Amino acid sequence: MEPIRVGLLGIGTVGGGTFRVLARNQEEITRRAGRGIRITMVADTDVARARSIVGDAAVVTSDAFEVVRHPAIDIVVELIGGTSVAKELQLAALANGKHVVTANKHLLAKHGNEIFAAARERDLMVGFEAAVAGGIPIIKSLREGLTANRIEWIAGIINGTSNFILSEMRDKGLGFSEVLAEAQRLGYAEADPTFDIEGVDAAHKLTIMSAIAFGVPMQFERAYTEGISQLTQLDISYAEAFGYRIKLLGITRRTAAGIELRVHPALVPAKRLIANVEGVMNAVMVKGDAVGVTMYYGAGAGAEPTASAVVADLVDVTRMHTADPEHRVPHLAFQPDQLADTPILPISEVVTANYLRMRVVDRPGVLADITRILSDEQVSIDAMLQKEPEEGQDQVDIILLTHPTKEAAMQAAIGRIEALAAVLSKVTKIRLEALRA
Amino acid sequence: MEPIRVGLLGIGTVGGGTFRVLARNQEEITRRAGRGIRITMVADTDVARARSIVGDAAVVTSDAFEVVRHPAIDIVVELIGGTSVAKELQLAALANGKHVVTANKHLLAKHGNEIFAAARERDLMVGFEAAVAGGIPIIKSLREGLTANRIEWIAGIINGTSNFILSEMRDKGLGFSEVLAEAQRLGYAEADPTFDIEGVDAAHKLTIMSAIAFGVPMQFERAYTEGISQLTQLDISYAEAFGYRIKLLGITRRTAAGIELRVHPALVPAKRLIANVEGVMNAVMVKGDAVGVTMYYGAGAGAEPTASAVVADLVDVTRMHTADPEHRVPHLAFQPDQLADTPILPISEVVTANYLRMRVVDRPGVLADITRILSDEQVSIDAMLQKEPEEGQDQVDIILLTHPTKEAAMQAAIGRIEALAAVLSKVTKIRLEALRA
Repeated sequence: MEPIRVGLLGIGTVGGGTFRVLARNQEEITRRAGRGIRITMVADTDVARARSIVGDAAVVTSDAFEVVRHPAIDIVVELIGGTSVAKELQLAALANGKHVVTANKHLLAKHGNEIFAAARERDLMVGFEAAVAGGIPIIKSLREGLTANRIEWIAGIINGTSNFILSEMRDKGLGFSEVLAEAQRLGYAEADPTFDIEGVDAAHKLTIMSAIAFGVPMQFERAYTEGISQLTQLDISYAEAFGYRIKLLGITRRTAAGIELRVHPALVPAKRLIANVEGVMNAVMVKGDAVGVTMYYGAGAGAEPTASAVVADLVDVTRMHTADPEHRVPHLAFQPDQLADTPILPISEVVTANYLRMRVVDRPGVLADITRILSDEQVSIDAMLQKEPEEGQDQVDIILLTHPTKEAAMQAAIGRIEALAAVLSKVTKIRLEALRA
Repeated sequence: MEPIRVGLLGIGTVGGGTFRVLARNQEEITRRAGRGIRITMVADTDVARARSIVGDAAVVTSDAFEVVRHPAIDIVVELIGGTSVAKELQLAALANGKHVVTANKHLLAKHGNEIFAAARERDLMVGFEAAVAGGIPIIKSLREGLTANRIEWIAGIINGTSNFILSEMRDKGLGFSEVLAEAQRLGYAEADPTFDIEGVDAAHKLTIMSAIAFGVPMQFERAYTEGISQLTQLDISYAEAFGYRIKLLGITRRTAAGIELRVHPALVPAKRLIANVEGVMNAVMVKGDAVGVTMYYGAGAGAEPTASAVVADLVDVTRMHTADPEHRVPHLAFQPDQLADTPILPISEVVTANYLRMRVVDRPGVLADITRILSDEQVSIDAMLQKEPEEGQDQVDIILLTHPTKEAAMQAAIGRIEALAAVLSKVTKIRLEALRA
């Protein structure tokens, strides 16, 4: 049988990796897929670079629309990224009867519902394993491996850049800005690192996982996002003193009131495996009612890890493109007419434990005032640390860990605490996640 | 559409879990599968127990053959275990046109090639996610999630009983027999624990993973198996002193000479995530050439975790049973006519680093004799520990870590060392696996 013909849009890091992996492992992939998979067209704005990578193996063009319309292309791999041209290209590919494989989490988190609807209309597949956690087969695991379960929650380290920064801050005792600069030098952070360090990229990925886990449409605009740029060395060491590590987590959880969908730094017990995931690696914990806690670990980015996921999708499409659509796994795990309208909870309704740090005047009665406010607002204290003031200082840090508390109550208490004359700083609040099995 | 009809053979721990999970999550599973899945017949030797579990929901019989022949059954779930009746039943189910789902690793490791051939002849599916690592979707991840990769190696903690025993020995400083007795009290070890503690169960699971990873037939009879019953507290603490933990690992690796297929205790760097997998939990590391190292973690046994895998297979079969066989994923990931005849290496040809412990007379020249023998046999030393003798003693322990060495050379050296008059004990040898990314 002739190989299936793939048009590649964008041959940068991941595109180059995809081309290389397909070429190198061609024989083994064909032995699995039962049919060859060949990239026959490549579109890239840098035509010379594209030619230098693909040689004579594929037609190179600067016009991506030529590829998505070309009759001799069966699958379009979109690796351009972003939400404008990429969206047009994916929709044009689908309109032209091509299956789509993509790593574009940004586009799917924002417009995935529309793209999947367009695909369904034409009985086409959209593969997006590469959009979440790079080479870790987390989409397949959630969508097919855990179908028996009512998923309770997902908690993941799903942004390698921010995990690298947090690991380095803890390891080397450096500040956020220094480590960010190092990450940029190493190519782990982009010149504009906002999406990575402010949790936006993680929220894209979390939105996709949440939809699959709970059978709801993707609702990125309702995700709560808080980044790591405000984290200090001080909080990392105090957390350590209590037996915790600070990680940027994407968390989605089903509660009686609705679905939580939030990205923020969190204290995690140091003994949890996920607390020990270091550097640019990713890991996703999934709690199902039958299976309990499972975890998936691997490289969340990079040329070949991400290519691994792109090619896995290509194999799936190759196997299933002539199959009746009813035999295919639905994009969001649940049959498209079976999505629920469970609401996404606003962050004010979310209940979490918290770490609080504040600087206060070291005099009698201050702690009593603080604990009275907490008690008034129904915030219950789980642990506390107050060190002796340094010599010649009349200020001390108070660190509190709270029991699970509704965000709104926590914020009300913090507002009142910050209004106390003896409280000299803003209250630093970092959520705490026990991630119990 | 009418639900698909499942006949359940054996309603013990996992069978009961499967029945419960399917009943409890019926609505959610149906929303995913697009069709209901119902257990309509149950066979168990204990008919009364079976009735008490299923009530009026299913027909109960003591004759499993009645189920595999029954025209109103679409899928047979075999949870009886063992290799005699279970084999007859699976083959009879296939002969009668039923798809099969099973957790029976023992049967598949020994007779899987025959069973898959029988299934192929009738265009039927055999699902066995539950046979390896319980609820962890490792079969799906290997078979579909990592199809882009040339798999280099797999290393897994795939027997919960032995991992529980090793965790307890380390945590509590107890001996093997004491902890085994405790595991038996807790129901984590069977009355006859041989399969678990001697690595046989792990070798069954490893055989299945190896076939999928490397595209070879299952060859359980060529697996090397060494258990944990000889491990002592002393070795656990010496390993710790070097920065290692001891785990029972199943390892399969592709080398230029052939495939390694071996289960044995191994020292693993304490900083590796897998070294921190404790108690009855399982974890499987997979190294692919594109994706790098990935790891999959979760409960490797138990009623509902295993049921999670059984039901995931039921959903797959429900989705695919009317599809053309070419659309289905091959049992061993590779197309059946594409299996390779790569040989399984005998253990004598396997190259690993090693931990060696020996008790020697504390006198000049002993260490020189030992190191000379090692050097003669081309065994190179990576690290060494010799403590001062305890007061009044003239014996000391020598601990050596070797660089990677061919097993045959290692054995030759050990034979010569044990023949030295100053060496008072057998040499304890435990392999060491760096498990580097």
